[in-house]
Amino acid sequence: MSYFDAASSAPLHPVARQALLASLDEGWADPARLYREGRRARLLLDAAREAAADAVGCRPDELVFTPSGTRAVHAGISGALAGRRRVGRHLVVSAVEHSSVLHSAAALETDGGSVTEVGVDRAGSVSPGAYADALREDTALACLQSANHEVGTVQPVAEVAAACRAAGVPLLVDAAQSLAWGPVEGDWSLLVGSAHKWGGPAGVGLLAVRKGVRFAAQGPADERESGRAAGFENIPAVVAAAASLRAVRAEAAEEDARLRELTERIRARVPGLVPDVEVVGDPVRRLPHVVTFSCLYVDGETLLHELDRAGFSVSSGSSCTSSTLTPSHVLKAMGVLSEGNVRVSLPLGTTGDDVERFLGVLPGTVASVRERLGATAVTAPAPAPASAPSLVVDALGKRCPIPVIELAKVIGDVPVGGTVTVLADDEAARLDIPAWCEMRSQEYVGEEPAERGAAYVVRRLS
Amino acid sequence: MSYFDAASSAPLHPVARQALLASLDEGWADPARLYREGRRARLLLDAAREAAADAVGCRPDELVFTPSGTRAVHAGISGALAGRRRVGRHLVVSAVEHSSVLHSAAALETDGGSVTEVGVDRAGSVSPGAYADALREDTALACLQSANHEVGTVQPVAEVAAACRAAGVPLLVDAAQSLAWGPVEGDWSLLVGSAHKWGGPAGVGLLAVRKGVRFAAQGPADERESGRAAGFENIPAVVAAAASLRAVRAEAAEEDARLRELTERIRARVPGLVPDVEVVGDPVRRLPHVVTFSCLYVDGETLLHELDRAGFSVSSGSSCTSSTLTPSHVLKAMGVLSEGNVRVSLPLGTTGDDVERFLGVLPGTVASVRERLGATAVTAPAPAPASAPSLVVDALGKRCPIPVIELAKVIGDVPVGGTVTVLADDEAARLDIPAWCEMRSQEYVGEEPAERGAAYVVRRLS
Repeated sequence: MSYFDAASSAPLHPVARQALLASLDEGWADPARLYREGRRARLLLDAAREAAADAVGCRPDELVFTPSGTRAVHAGISGALAGRRRVGRHLVVSAVEHSSVLHSAAALETDGGSVTEVGVDRAGSVSPGAYADALREDTALACLQSANHEVGTVQPVAEVAAACRAAGVPLLVDAAQSLAWGPVEGDWSLLVGSAHKWGGPAGVGLLAVRKGVRFAAQGPADERESGRAAGFENIPAVVAAAASLRAVRAEAAEEDARLRELTERIRARVPGLVPDVEVVGDPVRRLPHVVTFSCLYVDGETLLHELDRAGFSVSSGSSCTSSTLTPSHVLKAMGVLSEGNVRVSLPLGTTGDDVERFLGVLPGTVASVRERLGATAVTAPAPAPASAPSLVVDALGKRCPIPVIELAKVIGDVPVGGTVTVLADDEAARLDIPAWCEMRSQEYVGEEPAERGAAYVVRRLS
Repeated sequence: MSYFDAASSAPLHPVARQALLASLDEGWADPARLYREGRRARLLLDAAREAAADAVGCRPDELVFTPSGTRAVHAGISGALAGRRRVGRHLVVSAVEHSSVLHSAAALETDGGSVTEVGVDRAGSVSPGAYADALREDTALACLQSANHEVGTVQPVAEVAAACRAAGVPLLVDAAQSLAWGPVEGDWSLLVGSAHKWGGPAGVGLLAVRKGVRFAAQGPADERESGRAAGFENIPAVVAAAASLRAVRAEAAEEDARLRELTERIRARVPGLVPDVEVVGDPVRRLPHVVTFSCLYVDGETLLHELDRAGFSVSSGSSCTSSTLTPSHVLKAMGVLSEGNVRVSLPLGTTGDDVERFLGVLPGTVASVRERLGATAVTAPAPAPASAPSLVVDALGKRCPIPVIELAKVIGDVPVGGTVTVLADDEAARLDIPAWCEMRSQEYVGEEPAERGAAYVVRRLS
């Protein structure tokens, strides 16, 4: 079995396990109490806070532990917004933030505030200039991830932080995906992390708020964690989180180089091994352990299932998985193909052999899924030009990747210059038909309203 | 060392430890994922939910896990209030709820809602009739603890639940202190628990919401735990929590009887061993493992410190501890003495020998604290009546228990029928001077405004 989904949750690091066990007997008491069990718990908590703050690059009194990264995001955004309520109620986020950030933004909008989503390029990166342009007089807070969780693209945080500083707007950095690899550079104001992403236990997030940043914790009052994270402290888990962060940092440089070589191997070789694949995400400014690609004419759920049967655990931003009906907002914002999407994120210690086995299994797996979908014909060259100048394909009620498969099947039936109109009501078609055109050098003319769903018009160029 | 503060946090139960270790290797993956590590995590989570629901007495789909009891209270109250927003924004709570409930109530008030606090009798119990009277047309939610965390008094939950049901108001029961001992009786609508109170790990609370109860989760959307508890699930801890709840329930009947006998021993013998002690809380309708008493003329922090040195870890609701400047709201609502307050809450497995050692150490410890405060003279019989018909004692700037000690020292200096007026600005005096009068059969005349603090007037009766 090869677990290749570290970006969802990393297996528990041996140091985390060890620290957790060691502190179970020392860290269960209430650290607010004055008796010895309480003092002992307090000492553990203080030491963990110092270690975590050191790794984050802040003062211990600037950092609190939360029950998860999501809770850290919620608390950080709501607290920073409330702290600058008098400035305004405008929030800037990138379009590719984690759902916890986007859901916080949606909550602000429901509550009468306003949100600007800064778009990204085809590699998934924001432009510092575009980000700076989104800052307004009434901007209370800006949020930017350090690196994207789906495609691994590293964002220009230092540049954006400088622009925010110049505008007097605090920047919250969601560092969940990158904290294992090093501190976040640049002059950020708030920072969020999640322990189970770096091999720490579940149940621990962290929120750093720089001194001087206006912050008003929301929700009912609670004296724990400087009033910023309500509820009894989970000290054994916090100790394990801090110890494992220190441990992964100690091996970060070496593992970064090693895993980067392995993901580079996947990036370089998958397009040759599997026809009609788009590797997405920035090829250079990227996390060392993440590589993402999408396969035309493939149903993401079936592909995941087949890879699981072959012993590989990966995730997908495709809409055609049972957990979601819309394509990943990240792939959508990038404008890249979402069908047959696969994210490989290697945990520490992944070997070259694991990766070679994956590369060995992938082509056959994709081919078998395509065969099952009747999509083998579409990889053949288009037949000779036919007479009909335009065709309409009715893919209403068909889930991805069927509308794209139907399109590919008939494009050869219209002459060069002719059009195919695809009627589809699956949300993924809106993303995947233009992406297909880009990949196959056909022209995407545009979308027209239709009685049901939408009509996507494609012109044959070659 | 004897740890006698299980009501704050219980030491980890061996079964919890075992279950936690066993699930660390199985429960770290994302249970929303379709690959085998995810499915395995989902199975663990589902099994834990079933076990916990069985212990609570609800359906598995009515129960979610939260990061703490406090978070369960916050989510339960805010969700139930929002769900019944159209009915009104009135909340009923007892005056002796846990701070997480009272802070939620305060948040509602800040937000424009209204709150009725139902008082308690001297034993700490609400009256079902008084509780029913507090329910109004616009009452969205009522909250009542199953048992009090500071004095152990068991509340008449079934009767209050019936009154709420009759009025069409959902009742949220904070069962944090009692869940180890058995399910909550009566027709409750929402229920909250906290694993570290029953020997489970920190980081796990539970929130049950009966089908049919209107509920609208607050905060940014999140798909985890039926949308009621945001953030990545802490599955090893949840598994450990459920397993240990089942384990403590299996030994509950036996331990209930055993610990009840031990706390009864403390209740019965402390008044004979230590002069001027008030044992508080209901002597019969009470938790088996909790006993609370207050000692006149004693500084709570010093007493805790001395008991800690003697090897006993207990807690205190006194104001004279470094963590707080006001006496416990529970003791205040009961109208009982707060100075020298000691709560003993026995963990499972406490032996008779532990308790005997405590009873052996306590009298000398209290005496030494009193001696240090110069309070030994006050236990002597009052001297012969003196001539001054009234006296004023200036205790301004003096922290508890000094104002009461000063009062006790001079009461013999006024004739029977004469008065002593104590000037004090310590908040505890407001509670402890009347309580002293009650204990020493003197008349508390009342409080008069003063330039600084307040003037408390006491008439000598004997």
